[in-house]
Amino acid sequence: MSATKPEMLASAGHDTTDVYASRVLDHPTIVPRLDPVVYAKDRASGPLTPEQVRSYEKDGFLVLKSLFSPSEIARLQAELARLRESHAGIDPQTLVLEPGGRELRSIFQIHRSSELFARLASDARLVSIARFLLDDRVYVHQSRLNYKPGFFGKEFYWHSDFETWHTEDGMPRMRALSVSISLTENTELNGPLMLVPGSHRRYVTCVGRTPADHYKQSLRRQEYGVPDPGSLETLVAEGGLVSSTGPAGTVAIFDCNVMHGSNSNVTPHPRSNAFIVYNAVSNALLQPFGGQPPRPEFIAARSRVEPIEAHTSRLA
Amino acid sequence: MSATKPEMLASAGHDTTDVYASRVLDHPTIVPRLDPVVYAKDRASGPLTPEQVRSYEKDGFLVLKSLFSPSEIARLQAELARLRESHAGIDPQTLVLEPGGRELRSIFQIHRSSELFARLASDARLVSIARFLLDDRVYVHQSRLNYKPGFFGKEFYWHSDFETWHTEDGMPRMRALSVSISLTENTELNGPLMLVPGSHRRYVTCVGRTPADHYKQSLRRQEYGVPDPGSLETLVAEGGLVSSTGPAGTVAIFDCNVMHGSNSNVTPHPRSNAFIVYNAVSNALLQPFGGQPPRPEFIAARSRVEPIEAHTSRLA
Repeated sequence: MSATKPEMLASAGHDTTDVYASRVLDHPTIVPRLDPVVYAKDRASGPLTPEQVRSYEKDGFLVLKSLFSPSEIARLQAELARLRESHAGIDPQTLVLEPGGRELRSIFQIHRSSELFARLASDARLVSIARFLLDDRVYVHQSRLNYKPGFFGKEFYWHSDFETWHTEDGMPRMRALSVSISLTENTELNGPLMLVPGSHRRYVTCVGRTPADHYKQSLRRQEYGVPDPGSLETLVAEGGLVSSTGPAGTVAIFDCNVMHGSNSNVTPHPRSNAFIVYNAVSNALLQPFGGQPPRPEFIAARSRVEPIEAHTSRLA
Repeated sequence: MSATKPEMLASAGHDTTDVYASRVLDHPTIVPRLDPVVYAKDRASGPLTPEQVRSYEKDGFLVLKSLFSPSEIARLQAELARLRESHAGIDPQTLVLEPGGRELRSIFQIHRSSELFARLASDARLVSIARFLLDDRVYVHQSRLNYKPGFFGKEFYWHSDFETWHTEDGMPRMRALSVSISLTENTELNGPLMLVPGSHRRYVTCVGRTPADHYKQSLRRQEYGVPDPGSLETLVAEGGLVSSTGPAGTVAIFDCNVMHGSNSNVTPHPRSNAFIVYNAVSNALLQPFGGQPPRPEFIAARSRVEPIEAHTSRLA
């Protein structure tokens, strides 16, 4: 796997102004990230310690163990359970089932359908970190609950969020981050979030034009926008592999371009997390760079992008 | 989940001589094991320490870290790789692919198709343990390599081997055990073998007669011979959940009725193991208790059941 310089993409004949073009070549490439990871100009003034900032910049993620109190987590857990049982007031299209099953896999746009998760999304403890790292006002690009039920929870294959958000949603640059709040215990065995440290500093472009004689193979197992095994092996050989585990309430903050995924979960123990994606207001969506129509608002906020007014009240 | 006494099964109207009948009732049951776990009469005379014997009897499995030398494991690994690349001399029906993919998932009957794995299966270090725990001469009921490739290796759902071997293959009683020899590093993240300690002392009968009004649901996700979530929750609540991890060469010995399974493996690191199942010669197969025709010889030895002559020479 050799790295391809961004300039080389111009020779493929597509839009040369797209420095993060993906799904256009018939072979994968790994190109350097062109954007900062930590945008803060004054690193000493933010809500993170210098060690935490360095760690986030180097690895592409940061795990915080006690940002929320046990009673706050208990309240979020109760809301998680309520939303699984009652879908009153929830747009049906935001409910996603497990492939091949009836179990609930995800609910999108929870910051619109749940007052409590709306408060969580605008909680100053999270927003201040996002504003600091992105050095801008922020808005919620996407939010969701991932239930990953016991027994039948399926894997999330490796991906860079940014590759999708750029290609399918029109996010211009890498100036967004995700916050995951675990709402069950995340163990090594119930399909925890796995990340490749340092992978956020490279950009893996995905194969889009499959050669004609490979189409049967690609139809069987390669999906649009999936990184190739060779590139993944390169990233893992360089950076290793870590899992984000811990008790309910563990918070993982990760860069929009860090490679991550998770295994299935056949244990009886659900692995449920809330995700909130913050994007810099200066990085609001354009038209999708992949040329397809934009995905719906509940997956990628396009019209409702008002900057968050953070609040400092407790959740419980 | 309430336990059902074996006698109660008679009321279902099937063969009352089958004390381990499964897939006949329209609801799951958990019944007591009727057979010993450790058959040895003189426990002090065997190849295991008293502590190891107690642990195996209590948990249903035992992990041994250094039964084979590094050079022996290296030789088994080379054979594992050779068999993946070259299928010369291998019965094609013994090759099993990953669901939906082209990757090799398993090769069955490796003690017939590979001279090295034949030697492994008759190695005195393994055979002496099997003979001791089962207190009988033994033969190979089944052998296989599980490759569980990186990226696309799918899960093995929870099961008791015995439930299948009894119902589909006609194994009369619980007097068999499996030996798993890891041939790659098994970590918590690459889909390791997971076991439920103590589950071997209960027998979970699987639902066979699905109620008419549930058939759509069962077609979508319930397969013949799969334990129900409620019974699994009961077993895990009682015994917990452990994974068998360690460097290549780690040996796990587990009872034929211990509940086990594994998650998928999206990491780049394959999780490859060799499995050898030893059955007591006094426990040779009858006709399948489920009433279906027997499965093929390469899955369940029926005609070639000669007792193993153990050898003490090294593998490398």
